[in-house]
Amino acid sequence: MGEFELIDRYFKRPVQRNALGIGDDCALLSVAPGMRLAVSSDMLVEGRHFLSTVDPFRLGHKALAVNLSDLAACGASPLAFTLALAMPSADEAWLAPFSRGLLALADTHGCELVGGDTTRGPLNICITAFGEVPHSQALLRSGAQTGDDIYVSGTLGDARLALEVFRGTVSVPAAVFDRARARMEQPTPRIALGQALLGVASSAIDVSDGLLGDLGHILRQSAVGASIDTALAAGLMDAAGILPPAQQLEYVLAGGDDYELVFTASPSQREAVQAAALSAQVKVSRIGRIEPHPGLRLLDAQGRELENRFNSFDHFISP
Amino acid sequence: MGEFELIDRYFKRPVQRNALGIGDDCALLSVAPGMRLAVSSDMLVEGRHFLSTVDPFRLGHKALAVNLSDLAACGASPLAFTLALAMPSADEAWLAPFSRGLLALADTHGCELVGGDTTRGPLNICITAFGEVPHSQALLRSGAQTGDDIYVSGTLGDARLALEVFRGTVSVPAAVFDRARARMEQPTPRIALGQALLGVASSAIDVSDGLLGDLGHILRQSAVGASIDTALAAGLMDAAGILPPAQQLEYVLAGGDDYELVFTASPSQREAVQAAALSAQVKVSRIGRIEPHPGLRLLDAQGRELENRFNSFDHFISP
Repeated sequence: MGEFELIDRYFKRPVQRNALGIGDDCALLSVAPGMRLAVSSDMLVEGRHFLSTVDPFRLGHKALAVNLSDLAACGASPLAFTLALAMPSADEAWLAPFSRGLLALADTHGCELVGGDTTRGPLNICITAFGEVPHSQALLRSGAQTGDDIYVSGTLGDARLALEVFRGTVSVPAAVFDRARARMEQPTPRIALGQALLGVASSAIDVSDGLLGDLGHILRQSAVGASIDTALAAGLMDAAGILPPAQQLEYVLAGGDDYELVFTASPSQREAVQAAALSAQVKVSRIGRIEPHPGLRLLDAQGRELENRFNSFDHFISP
Repeated sequence: MGEFELIDRYFKRPVQRNALGIGDDCALLSVAPGMRLAVSSDMLVEGRHFLSTVDPFRLGHKALAVNLSDLAACGASPLAFTLALAMPSADEAWLAPFSRGLLALADTHGCELVGGDTTRGPLNICITAFGEVPHSQALLRSGAQTGDDIYVSGTLGDARLALEVFRGTVSVPAAVFDRARARMEQPTPRIALGQALLGVASSAIDVSDGLLGDLGHILRQSAVGASIDTALAAGLMDAAGILPPAQQLEYVLAGGDDYELVFTASPSQREAVQAAALSAQVKVSRIGRIEPHPGLRLLDAQGRELENRFNSFDHFISP
């Protein structure tokens, strides 16, 4: 199978939008007046972002999901994406389920594959996704204000739990593992929530490297600090109560690969935040507050400060 | 050096356009009314698209150049790009010249780095570039008409000559090799020519896999055929006369990695084509004609048909 046949067989689809689609030098996208184009690019490397044992259908889903999660964190509505794919050989047994998983998620969000590249090389998946967001309404990392509440969507730490089971450092019942593994391998981008938070949230980011690390980007770019109620945060794990409390808290605060949204909003928006969560059909939990003093403080149930010994994931520092 | 320090040190720059720039979940681009956004994505893998010995400055240039070449083939004006980079370690001796080469070419074309991803992994460079082109004026592969002339910009075959010297199959004088090597390692995207051909050319594509293979895309998507004057084509090599004639012709017709434009235009546009070439300061050569009968015919100086034994490059078929 050659490069062009590979594209035709697995990735070419009828053009939907007023766009050119696959098969010219460039995809041509028209963007609505009054809108900004949001662009996110993520690269997934075997052994680093996924295990060689992963189901290709789930990997196709995840490769797009991590990009859509970035669009969600801006409140953008997905439009289209490009796929650049390096693989050791044109393996149909892998390509067929990979493309199905990828395009199933794309269809869910009306996000069209409009171009890209395929080449031989160590397995590497690079997706660039495009969305649109109303001019001046985009959710940025820089908008948090002193006094704002801090919220997280969904659950945290379960992807890390699955990873540690694979690594052999933790053992859990099969049903717990299956749920955690689905969280790790097939995350749900919070697209509807991001859009519902336009005009409600003051800042947002998606949790990919770990809650504390990603919240840290909001704090630095907004020039503020924060305190987190660790008693509230600890309960955010779906598989709560399985691990020792300290380990559960670590997975929640610094697990990574969660693809939930952490965002801030004025206390005057509490009802609006819950209405956004309801409309997006995802739980959101209030876990802390933005403060003027820089830095991130972890508080216990009695409001006493805990030592922050949690590191978020860094692709060039972490082991 | 961590991931964020790496980005700050080598790739972060002041924001220019009415855009958000690096450092949020998405880059936000505003696109002018009446324009289409053109998107091109290319992935470069070590050992496949470049040799491990390549100067990182030149590699940075080339990684962006191959994407800009796609924009050129649509007649698009570059706006911005994202960079996703996998590398075995955060090697400063490599990153510093790579980023300089990349950003120097970006500056030449006013093309802003607006986001991306960095991760550990086998060396892989994935760039997605964005340009704008007036609505309905974009140069497509599907516009060639029977009777149109076929043109090529610049010179062809020299990148292949350099590759074969590296492979040890050919030996040439040092001065010839240096020029050919620069063509292979630091190609010039024909951005100005692409824009000058808007409203003049009927179709265009950039030559990356080889002239015949890439022209073949125009023929298929335009549902036409073509004849090529091989006597004219053979003279398109910069290092003409160095190789045996049959080998020179092979490098010109099927060498690959040229990043010139092949395009079609009505004979009524001959003066306009030359004016476009003059304004873009690049030679363009007329080498053939679009015909109604499907297929690609190679003619010698006497108009006799030659056997077409040239294969273009395919990432999953070629050795």
